[in-house]
Amino acid sequence: MHYSRLTERIAGDGAAAWNIHYRALERQARGDDVIILSVGDPDFTTPEPIVESAVASLRGGATHYADVQGKQRLRELIADTHRRQGGAATTTAANVAVMAGAQCGLYAVAQCVLEPGDEVLVPEPMYVTYEAALQAAGARLVRVPLRAGNAFQPDPAEFAAAVTPRTRAMLLNSPHNPTGQILGREHWAALAALCREHDLWLLSDEVYASLIFDEAHHCPDALPGMAERTAVISSLSKSHAMTGWRLGWVIGPETLVGHLSNLALCMLYGSPDFIQDAACEALAHPPAELAAMRETYRSRRDTVFAALADSATLDVLRPEAGMFMMIDIRRTGLSAADFADRLLEEHGVSVLSGEAFGPSAAGFVRLSLTVDAERLREACRRLEHCAASCLATVAAPD
Amino acid sequence: MHYSRLTERIAGDGAAAWNIHYRALERQARGDDVIILSVGDPDFTTPEPIVESAVASLRGGATHYADVQGKQRLRELIADTHRRQGGAATTTAANVAVMAGAQCGLYAVAQCVLEPGDEVLVPEPMYVTYEAALQAAGARLVRVPLRAGNAFQPDPAEFAAAVTPRTRAMLLNSPHNPTGQILGREHWAALAALCREHDLWLLSDEVYASLIFDEAHHCPDALPGMAERTAVISSLSKSHAMTGWRLGWVIGPETLVGHLSNLALCMLYGSPDFIQDAACEALAHPPAELAAMRETYRSRRDTVFAALADSATLDVLRPEAGMFMMIDIRRTGLSAADFADRLLEEHGVSVLSGEAFGPSAAGFVRLSLTVDAERLREACRRLEHCAASCLATVAAPD
Repeated sequence: MHYSRLTERIAGDGAAAWNIHYRALERQARGDDVIILSVGDPDFTTPEPIVESAVASLRGGATHYADVQGKQRLRELIADTHRRQGGAATTTAANVAVMAGAQCGLYAVAQCVLEPGDEVLVPEPMYVTYEAALQAAGARLVRVPLRAGNAFQPDPAEFAAAVTPRTRAMLLNSPHNPTGQILGREHWAALAALCREHDLWLLSDEVYASLIFDEAHHCPDALPGMAERTAVISSLSKSHAMTGWRLGWVIGPETLVGHLSNLALCMLYGSPDFIQDAACEALAHPPAELAAMRETYRSRRDTVFAALADSATLDVLRPEAGMFMMIDIRRTGLSAADFADRLLEEHGVSVLSGEAFGPSAAGFVRLSLTVDAERLREACRRLEHCAASCLATVAAPD
Repeated sequence: MHYSRLTERIAGDGAAAWNIHYRALERQARGDDVIILSVGDPDFTTPEPIVESAVASLRGGATHYADVQGKQRLRELIADTHRRQGGAATTTAANVAVMAGAQCGLYAVAQCVLEPGDEVLVPEPMYVTYEAALQAAGARLVRVPLRAGNAFQPDPAEFAAAVTPRTRAMLLNSPHNPTGQILGREHWAALAALCREHDLWLLSDEVYASLIFDEAHHCPDALPGMAERTAVISSLSKSHAMTGWRLGWVIGPETLVGHLSNLALCMLYGSPDFIQDAACEALAHPPAELAAMRETYRSRRDTVFAALADSATLDVLRPEAGMFMMIDIRRTGLSAADFADRLLEEHGVSVLSGEAFGPSAAGFVRLSLTVDAERLREACRRLEHCAASCLATVAAPD
């Protein structure tokens, strides 16, 4: 039977990147002692008041179709939260479309603003599923390297050099997955100026914005002339340990939100009412666990940093936000993919290889801060053993 | 800012058809005595064991990412149910992709099998959101009329005549929305033969299959040579009063399911685990309410039939399944859209105009059997008053 060309565009390495994670899950299911650090799924469960809000809603009969754009109250709460976090002061509920997660939000924005053949500037390394979400719309990713030697910060001049007449948008992600770095005010200003100059959309993936450890988050739609060309994509997944609820949103100009609602009508027919009720609770009464989770990630980051501080082989890039750390394994002499393979097969730790996120992350592996400090220290011991064994192999005479 | 051409393809009359429903909801919210018969949302809440299964799952911590293709156990239960209902005997969990509702399933299948410019044969009248779901993929709907004079049954010869070299698929819906008619064995055989002859996909929307009153449901993928070219799209929305849960699925060849999983990865990142757990409960232990709901719809159909039996102006098409009835209002002299408008504005009953479903349903309105018998009788009185007032208006001298 015939399948569409789209099926080729969504079947890239992005999907394949998860294979090592699935292998780890299978081994764990078989009873192996595997430490899974390959996915950004918090080890925390969703805070109880949020769960209980969904329970009350379910038992109250909120099992019917909901507003396809998203419940008015939820959209108001999202707009309020966004303004409070420094987003465009003009943001109202009319600027919000509720989607089935941030991934769904990005997919939907791509469908509504990109034509086949349009180019989108995306700094790499980047989240592995961006490629499929953008290519589903027929767009072409133009990768702009974030260089390890520059602590994975963007060089606006490289972005400017990558613009062509087909460039339609820029997709930025701060705090950044996989590196945990954040964009400072000057970088935002320079990249926003580029968007204005070339009439580009700015797609801003901000799912880790609530997990910044020290600095402030900068919302690009608050910059001059940017609200009209920015689609902010976010969710409760990471901030509220709600990955499995599939509740995210897009904040953008009303015209975009109208198109997103039409797409949501034929693609989703809305998000479950009881999930939207739980999201309202999450935003209306931010539970104390949120700050506690952020502090836990920070403390785990420090644990890994301390555990590998004396490593002769491994270097750690210190993240400013989020739940990931990049470990530089270049001195082992192995590729990150081979290192990740050996680490799982011989030492029972699953991490993602940097190459999965883009060539500029070659030589790094990404580790998730999603197990407790004790297990993280054990994971670091295994990492160090694995690295040492690589050195021994490489150094050994024939 | 630039928006993609897709935004035009998803903004058609399909979306506009719901306006009357939203107007009715607004009036109801203002306290008006409005009887809403414009949407296929059961007035039943989801059976308690299913709700409690979601509650237990939520409280048990199933708030993390779930398998993107769908949980193995849920896919097994869907495959088992499908085989038991007469679907292809070879169906296994590998033939199932879980999606965020049947609407999402149709959207996803269209993305994976249709190229821009491909033609899809769709009998009209048809569900109003088909158009956007197929056009999102760039496909062109080729409407094949179901004629009121033929009780809205398809004429296979008309389908055959509509096939061109660009025809890629046929989208069928039995039991049928809006007419409540079902396809018999001979119709299925003739249309399946056409699919085989012209190498077409058969997209089969079967969301009302569990709500057939007397006859048997026929699954097209059980016909010779059809499993390899059929995508069965279904959900728990209508059968289990779970419209708001957004849980549906596609059953098809493994290659299709692989592509759907890739799309689900970049479009949804899976369906919530606790919703999948509730769906498992729904399929593993079908609650007694299911048969009771079906019998209630049947009884309501009979109520409307009896209430309008003596109408001098209105005729009722007797549905064999589902939760809708078509009322022939042609003798009022008004278009169905004008009649529906007047019915809402002057008599406080919201129905959808037949034209919303396609030109062959002009002169009909669709009424949902989603209020109790008492309210349905009141709605019928108002319908009859409205029809009589139309006649009086039309007949009155200037």
